[in-house]
Amino acid sequence: MSYARQMLDAYPGTISIDAPVLAGTIEALTDCAQACTADTDDDLSEPNVTEMVRCIRLCLDCADVCTATAAVASRQREELNPAVLRPLLEACAAICSSCGEECERHAHMHSHCRVCAEACRRGEQASRVLLAALR
Amino acid sequence: MSYARQMLDAYPGTISIDAPVLAGTIEALTDCAQACTADTDDDLSEPNVTEMVRCIRLCLDCADVCTATAAVASRQREELNPAVLRPLLEACAAICSSCGEECERHAHMHSHCRVCAEACRRGEQASRVLLAALR
Amino acid sequence: MSYARQMLDAYPGTISIDAPVLAGTIEALTDCAQACTADTDDDLSEPNVTEMVRCIRLCLDCADVCTATAAVASRQREELNPAVLRPLLEACAAICSSCGEECERHAHMHSHCRVCAEACRRGEQASRVLLAALR
Amino acid sequence: MSYARQMLDAYPGTISIDAPVLAGTIEALTDCAQACTADTDDDLSEPNVTEMVRCIRLCLDCADVCTATAAVASRQREELNPAVLRPLLEACAAICSSCGEECERHAHMHSHCRVCAEACRRGEQASRVLLAALR
Repeated sequence: MSYARQMLDAYPGTISIDAPVLAGTIEALTDCAQACTADTDDDLSEPNVTEMVRCIRLCLDCADVCTATAAVASRQREELNPAVLRPLLEACAAICSSCGEECERHAHMHSHCRVCAEACRRGEQASRVLLAALR
Repeated sequence: MSYARQMLDAYPGTISIDAPVLAGTIEALTDCAQACTADTDDDLSEPNVTEMVRCIRLCLDCADVCTATAAVASRQREELNPAVLRPLLEACAAICSSCGEECERHAHMHSHCRVCAEACRRGEQASRVLLAALR
Repeated sequence: MSYARQMLDAYPGTISIDAPVLAGTIEALTDCAQACTADTDDDLSEPNVTEMVRCIRLCLDCADVCTATAAVASRQREELNPAVLRPLLEACAAICSSCGEECERHAHMHSHCRVCAEACRRGEQASRVLLAALR
Repeated sequence: MSYARQMLDAYPGTISIDAPVLAGTIEALTDCAQACTADTDDDLSEPNVTEMVRCIRLCLDCADVCTATAAVASRQREELNPAVLRPLLEACAAICSSCGEECERHAHMHSHCRVCAEACRRGEQASRVLLAALR
């Protein structure tokens, strides 16, 4: 069982949302941030780096937004603040979608982009699942 | 002149938004993140820490969201991505507002909360100014 | 297989260090950062929060240092820079050790601290393994 | 007066180190992180991006290490933990030095690298000043 899930199960209060949904989102966003950080460096190692510039920028944004969203989703679980968490998850779904799409364009040439695209797709989906659960 | 402004002035491309507005937002959010990180620790030093729990949580969220927003606003300045930046700025304005309000409640007792409330108010306003410029 | 490992396997260059060792460290530090962020919030939910202040501070430091170390270890893998990475891993091992020890003190009362202590111990060990591989 | 300094002056406890030194380091590292994040994006906008790859990687590392160091230096000010803070500051001085040197190599062509080099030099010096004060 992931730490995200174990920590939620050990939470001393009442969680305002389905624990497996919340843990799943935290994990998917943490994984996505990590994949994007690694993919940035992989892109920088490619001979065709000029063609990877857009991918690098989107990966950097995606890592930052996923990290912040996972952290906010890990706090105040008794009363998750929808005024903050909802637009944050929308931003997160949007950047995961843009970044995943760009990574996919390079997936046939660069296997690291294929892996990162998958992590972004999971991040996007997990953001949307938590968004739906917040409503 | 701040580094944020100097870096924008040295930008090799065309910036899609008024440079002083963008630089002002980046600075205000960076300052706010820093104030919130410090205020978290100040709150933890107070004898009435149990009454500061909500303030601590909001400061932690505020620091994370401001940091991510400042980073995203520092990238792809030729074509700032509104689908990502807009909800991110909305989340940022919302957490700066909640955190600033909570800090203000403690401002008469704790001068560090007064300082942090001011940083949050500037962060909120700067987020709204950039939001307006994005439309 | 973790994304950290998949991304290393897809790396276009030569990795200067054993890939499973590097991937294991990146994962352990990412997990530890995530556990510490969650444990901070769990500690803040405890009725005896005044006794948890030291634990909260160490968890906050531990999350920040593990996040930075995992990010740096994810870059310039062809020539990991020992002048930076070595002291960073030393700082990381030191904070994982302090934080793990403090969490362990509360483990009999708070199961979230038991889980976090375990994540810190893994983070400390992973830092030391990568340190040894760097020499 | 900077927020870093105002927050230290409002600190409810006793600070174990000279407040202006500590505030100066926190500010210099926050500024350096911000400059490096912006410079990464500036480098990515340059036509000769292939020649900027090393600069980009160092800027990314520098931003991460400076951010973590500034955060740790903002906590537990009554008893700054030298076992963690000392190697962290050493890592920070090392990456600021490498990154500043690389930025300087491009300063005659790219004014953003000149600005970033200056921020890195200040970050390096501030890390060394706090290191000396810790002994």
